[in-house]
Amino acid sequence: MLNTLIVGASGYAGVELATYLNRHPHMTITALAVSAQSPDAGKLLSDLHPQLKGVVDLPLQPLSDPAEFADKVDVVFLATAHEVSHDLAPAFLAAGCVVFDLSGAFRVNDADFYTQYYGFTHQHQAWLDKAVYGLAEWQRDGIKEAQLIAVPGCYPTAAQLSLKPLIEAGLLNDAQWPVINATSGVSGAGRKATMNNSFCEVSLHAYGIFHHRHHPEIVAHLGTPVIFTPHLGSFPRGILATTTCRLKPGVTQDDVAAAFKAAYDDKPLVRLYEKGMPALKSVVGLPFCDIGFAVQGEHIIVVAVEDNLLKGASSQAVQCLNIRFGFPETESLI
Amino acid sequence: MLNTLIVGASGYAGVELATYLNRHPHMTITALAVSAQSPDAGKLLSDLHPQLKGVVDLPLQPLSDPAEFADKVDVVFLATAHEVSHDLAPAFLAAGCVVFDLSGAFRVNDADFYTQYYGFTHQHQAWLDKAVYGLAEWQRDGIKEAQLIAVPGCYPTAAQLSLKPLIEAGLLNDAQWPVINATSGVSGAGRKATMNNSFCEVSLHAYGIFHHRHHPEIVAHLGTPVIFTPHLGSFPRGILATTTCRLKPGVTQDDVAAAFKAAYDDKPLVRLYEKGMPALKSVVGLPFCDIGFAVQGEHIIVVAVEDNLLKGASSQAVQCLNIRFGFPETESLI
Amino acid sequence: MLNTLIVGASGYAGVELATYLNRHPHMTITALAVSAQSPDAGKLLSDLHPQLKGVVDLPLQPLSDPAEFADKVDVVFLATAHEVSHDLAPAFLAAGCVVFDLSGAFRVNDADFYTQYYGFTHQHQAWLDKAVYGLAEWQRDGIKEAQLIAVPGCYPTAAQLSLKPLIEAGLLNDAQWPVINATSGVSGAGRKATMNNSFCEVSLHAYGIFHHRHHPEIVAHLGTPVIFTPHLGSFPRGILATTTCRLKPGVTQDDVAAAFKAAYDDKPLVRLYEKGMPALKSVVGLPFCDIGFAVQGEHIIVVAVEDNLLKGASSQAVQCLNIRFGFPETESLI
Amino acid sequence: MLNTLIVGASGYAGVELATYLNRHPHMTITALAVSAQSPDAGKLLSDLHPQLKGVVDLPLQPLSDPAEFADKVDVVFLATAHEVSHDLAPAFLAAGCVVFDLSGAFRVNDADFYTQYYGFTHQHQAWLDKAVYGLAEWQRDGIKEAQLIAVPGCYPTAAQLSLKPLIEAGLLNDAQWPVINATSGVSGAGRKATMNNSFCEVSLHAYGIFHHRHHPEIVAHLGTPVIFTPHLGSFPRGILATTTCRLKPGVTQDDVAAAFKAAYDDKPLVRLYEKGMPALKSVVGLPFCDIGFAVQGEHIIVVAVEDNLLKGASSQAVQCLNIRFGFPETESLI
Repeated sequence: MLNTLIVGASGYAGVELATYLNRHPHMTITALAVSAQSPDAGKLLSDLHPQLKGVVDLPLQPLSDPAEFADKVDVVFLATAHEVSHDLAPAFLAAGCVVFDLSGAFRVNDADFYTQYYGFTHQHQAWLDKAVYGLAEWQRDGIKEAQLIAVPGCYPTAAQLSLKPLIEAGLLNDAQWPVINATSGVSGAGRKATMNNSFCEVSLHAYGIFHHRHHPEIVAHLGTPVIFTPHLGSFPRGILATTTCRLKPGVTQDDVAAAFKAAYDDKPLVRLYEKGMPALKSVVGLPFCDIGFAVQGEHIIVVAVEDNLLKGASSQAVQCLNIRFGFPETESLI
Repeated sequence: MLNTLIVGASGYAGVELATYLNRHPHMTITALAVSAQSPDAGKLLSDLHPQLKGVVDLPLQPLSDPAEFADKVDVVFLATAHEVSHDLAPAFLAAGCVVFDLSGAFRVNDADFYTQYYGFTHQHQAWLDKAVYGLAEWQRDGIKEAQLIAVPGCYPTAAQLSLKPLIEAGLLNDAQWPVINATSGVSGAGRKATMNNSFCEVSLHAYGIFHHRHHPEIVAHLGTPVIFTPHLGSFPRGILATTTCRLKPGVTQDDVAAAFKAAYDDKPLVRLYEKGMPALKSVVGLPFCDIGFAVQGEHIIVVAVEDNLLKGASSQAVQCLNIRFGFPETESLI
Repeated sequence: MLNTLIVGASGYAGVELATYLNRHPHMTITALAVSAQSPDAGKLLSDLHPQLKGVVDLPLQPLSDPAEFADKVDVVFLATAHEVSHDLAPAFLAAGCVVFDLSGAFRVNDADFYTQYYGFTHQHQAWLDKAVYGLAEWQRDGIKEAQLIAVPGCYPTAAQLSLKPLIEAGLLNDAQWPVINATSGVSGAGRKATMNNSFCEVSLHAYGIFHHRHHPEIVAHLGTPVIFTPHLGSFPRGILATTTCRLKPGVTQDDVAAAFKAAYDDKPLVRLYEKGMPALKSVVGLPFCDIGFAVQGEHIIVVAVEDNLLKGASSQAVQCLNIRFGFPETESLI
Repeated sequence: MLNTLIVGASGYAGVELATYLNRHPHMTITALAVSAQSPDAGKLLSDLHPQLKGVVDLPLQPLSDPAEFADKVDVVFLATAHEVSHDLAPAFLAAGCVVFDLSGAFRVNDADFYTQYYGFTHQHQAWLDKAVYGLAEWQRDGIKEAQLIAVPGCYPTAAQLSLKPLIEAGLLNDAQWPVINATSGVSGAGRKATMNNSFCEVSLHAYGIFHHRHHPEIVAHLGTPVIFTPHLGSFPRGILATTTCRLKPGVTQDDVAAAFKAAYDDKPLVRLYEKGMPALKSVVGLPFCDIGFAVQGEHIIVVAVEDNLLKGASSQAVQCLNIRFGFPETESLI
C-alpha cells in the first residue's frame, strides 16, 4: 500500500482524486490538505461535498509546512493553483515523494514560458528538466521513470489526443494551422464564487481568444502552431473539442484511420469511433477520451470528448499513477 | 409622459423594469441609479446586460442623495435591498413622487415585523400605515389611491393568488394548515457572486424551512397560518407553487371552480386552467400567473406558476403603475 | 459466480444494472435481452449507450421464449414494462431462477390492485403471495428468503424511507394525511420518444395529481392514507421528495431524531443529515437516499433525495441481490 | 391593415411569428393553418402552446386547398417543411399574395440544388428566378420589390452575417477556407418527438459533418467555399457560430473593424461589439444578431450569436416584411 496526500482536496478535481484513490486497492489516503488560509481547513471533505458522506469523511488539514506531511507519504497529488504547486512540489520531491501535479507549474520545460503566460518567475529549472508531461497515452515510458509528473491541462489533453496521431504520422499540411474549437463545462473554472460562474450569468460564449494559457501548452507539446478557441458552455462538466485540419495532398481516409488505430488501438482509455461522432454524455463521469473523425477532400475534422475533471485532470493523474507504479492502467478508473 | 427613476437598475428585476418602462408609451426613463458604492456606477446598463445594447443604453448613475433625482421625476421604482428601500423611500415620497418598492421594506404594516424577520428597526411607521400592498388582482382600489405601493415578494404572489379565492369564499377547513411547496429559479437570489449561486453548486434543494421571510408575509396578508417550504431549482427563472389544502366538508369541485372564476375572470394577468396544470415554461418571460387546481374528496391541490422576476416582481410593479395611473392594466406587459 | 440475465437491458435502468453487475465480483452477465419486437434487438448495448463502449459490449438478444435463457442463469433482472414482467416472471421462477422485478407487476399482494391501477388482470396470485417487496432497509429478512423480489418504484422508495420511521414509531397525528410533494427527473419516464419527453417541451410541472400509480403503492405499504403530488423537473436524473406531516401533540425534535436514527443508523445506503437538508446533486449517480428533517411545533418536514434510476430502481435491485445472497450490502454499489 | 395567414403555425417558428404579428400595428392574423393531416388541426394554438393563452387563441385550421385562404389574405408566412412550401407557395403567389417562406424551398436559384441536397425535384424554376433571399441586412433593395422572399436558414444567417463584410471588402485570403463551427439549440430540429430530441438523449455533439444542408446554402450565397461544422447543444434556443479565417497579408485589425462598421453601422438588428465577444443569452428571445471579432497576425476569429427561431427564422421574416412594406425595420420586433 502506498500512502498518499492530496493537496487542494476541496476543489472539484480534488474530490475526484479522493473518490478514485479511496477505492484504489494499492493506495491509502493518508491525509487531505488545503491551504492553511482556506476557510475550508478543518472541515470534513464530506461537509463540503456531501456526495462523499459515508464514503470519504476525512478532514481537510491545513498545510503550511510540507515537511509535516512529506515523511508520512509516498505519493502526493497537487490539485492546487499554479503558484502553489510551484512552491510546494520541490519540498515533497526532496523528501522522496512521487508528485503528480495537476496545475500548469511544471508542464513546459522552459522557465520563460511561466514568465510570459503565468505571470511568475519559475525558480525550479532543475525540476522543470526532470518533470515528465503526463499525457498518458503518449508518455508511458517517461512516466514509468518519473518522480514529478505534470498532468496536462483539460483542453490540451483533448487537443493533443486529437492531433498527435496525425502529426506523428506526418499527415498534416503545414501550409495551414489546425483550428481547434473547444467548449468546456463550468467546473473547468474551479470551485469559487465569481460573477462569471454565477448560475444566471453563465451562457455559451467564446473567451480567451488567441490568449488562453492552454494555447502555448498545446503548441509546445505538439511542436506546431495551432489556432485554439475555447468556449464556456452552460453545463457543469465535460469538454468537446472540434479540430479542423488540412491534410497533405493524397492523404486518404484510410491513412487517417490507420494513424489513429496505430496510436490508440492498445490504449484502454481512448475510444475510437469507427463511425459517427462522440457526444459529451458518453464520457461525463468516466475516464475516457472518445474520438471520432471525418475526411472530405483535403480536410479532416476530428471530434474529441472527455470529462474535463477526469481525463482532463484527475483520472489522467490516477492513470499516470497506475503507469508509474506498474498497476493495471485502468485500476480503479472503470 | 411621466418621468421615472429606477433605483437598483443593475439587478435582474431592475433590468426587467427598464425593459418594460422603455417601451411604455406614457413613461420616460429619466434616470437609472445604483448605490454610490456600487462598482457598476458609471457603467451603461447595457454593458452589464448586453441584451439591452441598442435598446436601453442609459448610464447607471451613482445615487447618494435622493434629492438630486426627486425633483426631476414623478415615479420611482426601488429595486433595492430592504434596508436601502427603507432609507430611500421617505425622501422620494416627501418630494411627492409615487414610489413602487420591490423590496420587503413596506409590505407589512407592523414595524415589529421588520425587527423580527428582517433584522432592522423600522423608522417609518407613518409610511407603513399608508403603504398599499401591491398584490394587483386583490388591491386595485387601494393601489389607485396610493403614493407608496409595496410590491409583494415572488413566493407570496404565487401563494396568495393560489389561496385567496379559497379563503375569501370560506372554503378551507381551519383544522388543517395549507401546505405550500414552491420551487424558484436562481435569479430569485439576486445578481451576485456567492458559492450558493455558483453554477456547479446549484442543485434542487429545500431551504429556509419554517424560517423564510416570505412566510410571515404570506401569513400576514392571508390572515391564516400556512406551512411554506421553498426550494431552489436549477433553472434561472420562474416559480412553481403547489399548495395542498383541506376543504370544508361538502365543498365540491364546482364550488372551488366558482371561487376561482369569481376572483380572476376579469383579471387579464391571471390565467385559470379549466383542465390540466400549468407548466413553468408557459410563464417564463411573461407577466402572467397561471393557475390550475384539482379536487378529490376533502382535499384540493392548487398549482400556480409565474416568472419570479416578472409577476413576482417587475411586471407586477408595472401592473400596479398601470392601475395607479389609469393606464390599461396590461399596457406594455403583453 | 452467479449467472445472470437482464431483460429490458436497453432502457435507462437496464444500463445501470449492466454497469453494476459487470463490476460485481460474484456475478457474471450471461446475457442481455430485449423484447423480440424491439428495434434494438441484435445491437450491442454499447451502440445504444456509448458510455459503455469497451465496458459492456454485449449484444441485446431478442427474447421470445424465457426457456431459452432460464436454464443458463441463476438470477434474472426484469427491467421491463409491468405487463411484460407479469408475463415473463413465472417462467423464470418455475425454472428456479431468483427474480428481481423492477416493474410494478408484483409490488402489491392484491390482484385487484392491478385491475384498478394498471389496467390488466393479474394471473399469478400465487406469486403475488410469495413476492417480497424490496424496500431494502425495511425488508431485509424477507428478502433473504425470497425467490421473487418486487423492487419498489422510484417515488415510493423516497416516500416510504421518509415516512416509515415516523409511522413505525407512532409519531404521526392521524387527523391529517401526510403531504408528499416530489419532483423527478425525466429519465423516470423511460427511454422513448414522446412529445412529453421532447427536450424543448420539458418544463417543471405537476402531473398525475391524485391519480399516479405510485400513490396506491405507497398507501398499500405504509398502511396509511397520504396525498402524493408528483412533478416533472427539467433535469435528467434524481428525485427530491418533500413530505409535510403533523406530529402527535408532545412529540419533540428529539423523538423524531431518535426514530430516524433507530431506523437507519446501521443502514449504509440511507444517509441521515443531522443539520441542513440534502440537495439532489449529492445522490445523482450514487446508490444513496439522503434524508433531512425539521420540526416546528406540531409539524415536521422531511426531505429525501435519491437517484430515481439507482436507489429508485437499479441500485436498490442490486442491494436486494446483495442481501439475498449474503454479499456485503454495498458490494459494487459504492 | 394587411391580412395575413401563417401556415405551419403549430411549430416553434410559427409560434414566434404569431406572437410578433399579433402585436404588429399594421397586420391582422386572418388565419392560422396546419396540414390537413396534422393531429393539431382544429386545436387552438394556445392549447398547444399555453404561453399564448389569452394572447393568441386562434384555431389551427386544416389546410388542404390554398385557394380557401388565398383570397382573404395579402401576406402568407410559410413555416412549413421544404416540400410543403414548394408545393404551396405557387398557389398563393398566383393569387397575388406576398409570400415569406421560412423553409429551404426557394433559397437557391438553381433547381439542381434541390435534387442534390433536398432530395426532391424542384418544379418551379420561374419562382426560383424571382425569389429574393431574405438576408435582411444584405438584400434590402431586392426585398422591397419581391413577391417571394426566401428567409435564410438559421446557421446560414449567422455564418453569412459573420463573413460577408470580410468577403465584400476583399480581406480574406483565398488560400484557406473559412472554418465555421456553430452550436445550435434543440428547437432547431423542430417540434417533434424523436429519440434524438428526447430530453435524456440530448448532449453536445457534432453532426452532419461535411453534409449539412445549410453548407451549400452558405456556399451558394457567399460565393466561396467554407468548412461548416454544426453541433447540437443541450439548450432549447440560440446559435453561436465561431468562424476562423485567414486574412490577406497586411490586413489589419482596423481594416476589419472598418469593414464591419461599413456593413452594419446603420443596421439596427446587427449589433457589433467593439470589445469582448457576445454570449448566447444576450440574444435569446430577441431579434438581434450580435457579432464580435478578434485579429492576431493573419488570422481572424468572428463570433456571432442569434436566436435560431428569431433572427434565424421568424424575426428575420418579420424584418423582411417590414422592409417589404415600408414599415420601420424593427416594428414589433424590439
